[in-house]
Amino acid sequence: MSDIRSKFMEVYSVLKSELLNDPAFEFTDDSREWIDRMLDYNVPGGKLNRGLSVIDSYKLLKEGELANDELFLACALGWCIEWLQAYFLVLDDIMDNSITRRGQPCWFRLPKIGMIAVNDGIILRNHIPRILKKHFRGKPYYVDLLDLFNEVEFQTTSGQMIDLITTIEGEKDLSKYSLQLYHRIVQYKTAYYSFYLPVACALLMKGENLDNHIDVKNILIEMGTYFQIQDDCLDCFGDPQVIGKVGTDIEDFKCSWLVVKALELCNEEQKKSLFENYGKADEACVAKVKELYEVLNLQGVFEEYECKSYQKLVKSIEAHPDKAVQAVLKSFLAKIYKRQK
Amino acid sequence: MSDIRSKFMEVYSVLKSELLNDPAFEFTDDSREWIDRMLDYNVPGGKLNRGLSVIDSYKLLKEGELANDELFLACALGWCIEWLQAYFLVLDDIMDNSITRRGQPCWFRLPKIGMIAVNDGIILRNHIPRILKKHFRGKPYYVDLLDLFNEVEFQTTSGQMIDLITTIEGEKDLSKYSLQLYHRIVQYKTAYYSFYLPVACALLMKGENLDNHIDVKNILIEMGTYFQIQDDCLDCFGDPQVIGKVGTDIEDFKCSWLVVKALELCNEEQKKSLFENYGKADEACVAKVKELYEVLNLQGVFEEYECKSYQKLVKSIEAHPDKAVQAVLKSFLAKIYKRQK
Repeated sequence: MSDIRSKFMEVYSVLKSELLNDPAFEFTDDSREWIDRMLDYNVPGGKLNRGLSVIDSYKLLKEGELANDELFLACALGWCIEWLQAYFLVLDDIMDNSITRRGQPCWFRLPKIGMIAVNDGIILRNHIPRILKKHFRGKPYYVDLLDLFNEVEFQTTSGQMIDLITTIEGEKDLSKYSLQLYHRIVQYKTAYYSFYLPVACALLMKGENLDNHIDVKNILIEMGTYFQIQDDCLDCFGDPQVIGKVGTDIEDFKCSWLVVKALELCNEEQKKSLFENYGKADEACVAKVKELYEVLNLQGVFEEYECKSYQKLVKSIEAHPDKAVQAVLKSFLAKIYKRQK
Repeated sequence: MSDIRSKFMEVYSVLKSELLNDPAFEFTDDSREWIDRMLDYNVPGGKLNRGLSVIDSYKLLKEGELANDELFLACALGWCIEWLQAYFLVLDDIMDNSITRRGQPCWFRLPKIGMIAVNDGIILRNHIPRILKKHFRGKPYYVDLLDLFNEVEFQTTSGQMIDLITTIEGEKDLSKYSLQLYHRIVQYKTAYYSFYLPVACALLMKGENLDNHIDVKNILIEMGTYFQIQDDCLDCFGDPQVIGKVGTDIEDFKCSWLVVKALELCNEEQKKSLFENYGKADEACVAKVKELYEVLNLQGVFEEYECKSYQKLVKSIEAHPDKAVQAVLKSFLAKIYKRQK
C-alpha cells in the first residue's frame, strides 16, 4: 500500500473513533456497535479515488510537501467525500433494488438491516458536518466548506431525481432520451461530486474563493462527463475481466451515452429495432442492440469524441493563468484519458 | 385562518417558487412539476405547530411587533423546520411501511412514486440549506444556523437509530425496554427538533449565542419529554374522536412510556402477562395489556408525573434571568399542559 493510502486509512480510524464518541449524542452500546459496523461495511471499501484526489490536488496547489496537520485536514476532507459517496450508494442500492455493491451484498440486504438502511444512509450524511465542525470550525473557509457540501449534495440529488423520473418502471419510453438530457443527468448526478468537489475542497484549503474559479469548475464538469461516457462505453465494450463486472446497461434501460448516440444516428428502421429491443432482460434483444451499436460504429464515434474532448480539455487547461491549478487539472485528466477500467 | 397563519402560508408559496427556480440546478419541466407536487403533498399539510412557534417565540423575544422583513425571515426559519419534519416523515413512513399520514396515503404509496420517495425525502432535506443560503447568507448568525440544523438533524437521526435497532422485527424483546432508554429515544428523536430547534432559531435571529442558553435547551428537552409522555398516554387512553386516530402502540410493540412504567411497577406474574401479550395484533392481547395498565393505575401515575413535571418546569422557567425568555418558555408550556389532543 502506498504511503499516502496508508496515511489516509489511518485518518479513517481517527475519524471513526471521534464519531463513535461524539458528545452530541449519548450512544448505547448497541448503537455504537451498529455504527462501527455500518461504517466499516460502507465507507472504506471502494477505490477511494475521490478522497485521495483531495490530497493529490492540495499537494499540487501547495507545490510541495504538506505539514502533518495539513495532511490530516486534506485526508479528513477526502473522507467527507467518501462518506458522501457511501451515503449515496447505500440509498441508491435501496432505490434500485440492487443485489451487490463493491463485491459484497448491498447493506440493506444483510439480515436485520432492511429498511433501517435508509436511516443509516442519513446517518452517513450527517457525519459529514460532524467531521467538518470538529476539524474546520475555526478555519476562515469553514462556512464555504458547509456551503460547498450543501450545494454539491443538492445538485447530486437533483440529478438523481431526473434520472429516476425519466426511467420510472412501466413507463420505459426511449423517446424521452436525448443528448441534452444525458448531459444534464451526468453533470448533476456524477460530475459535481466526483470531479468538482475534491478540487473545490483543495482550493478552499488553499484559501481560494470559489467564485474566482468558475472556469476550473467547468473544466472538471467536462472531464466528469467524459469519464461517464467512457464508463458507458466500457459497460458495453469493456472486458469484464478488466472492469470487474458484467455490464447490464442495455437490459436495465439505462440512459447511456450509447443509446442516446444511437438514437441520434439511426434511421427509422434502426430506431424501430432499438425501441423493440432496448431495456429487455433477454439475450437475443441485447445482442440486437449491440449489433446496431456496431453497425452505427459507436466505438468509432466514441474514439472521435474522446480525441476531440481531450484536445479541448488540454486547450482549456493550458489557458488557465495559474500553473499549479493547471497541474491539478492535468493530473485528473491523465488519470482518466484512455482508461480501460 | 389567523393572520399569522395566512402570512405563514404566503411565505410557503414564495419559498416554493424560489426552490423551483433555483439557479444551482437546471430543471426539466417534468422535474419542476415533480418537486412542486411533492412539496405540496408533504410539506404544508400538518398542524404547523413547530414552524409557527418560531414566529411566536421571536415576537416574545423582541417584545413587540415585527417589521415585515423580520416576519418574513422568522417564517422562513419556521418553514425550514416544517421541511425538516416533512423529510423525517417521508422516510419514516418508508421505514415503518406505514399506510397513511395526515389523513392521506403515505407519499411512497402513491402510483409511480415507490422508492423514488427516498430521493424525494433527501431533496426535502436539501432544500433547507438552499432556503438558509438564499435568505440568511449575509447574516452574522448564518454559520450558527447551519451548525444548529446540522446538529439537531444528527441528534434526531441518532435517536431514530436507537429506536429502530431496539425494535428490530423478529427480535421483540421487552426486557430491552427501560425508562432510561425511553428518555434517550424521546430526547434525541423528538425533543431536539420539535421543542429546542424553534426556540434556538428565534434566539439566533435575536443575536443570541446559543452556548449561553444551555438552561433553555434543558427546559425545552424536559418539555418535549413531557409532551411525548402525554402522546403515549393519549394513544392508549385518549378519545379517538378527539385525537383523530386510533392508537396502536400496544399492537406495534412501541417503546411507550406506559409499557416502560408497567415494567417498572409490575410483579412477576403481571410481567409474564405483559411479555405474553405486548406487541400482538390481537384484540384479546391488547385488552389484557390495557387491563394491566388499569390495575397498575397508570393513568394516576401519569397524572402525578404531569403535576410534578409541571411544577418543576415552572420553577425552572421562573429561575431564568430574562423575562422575555421566560415568556417564550411559558407560552410553550401553556400550549401543552393538560392537552387532550
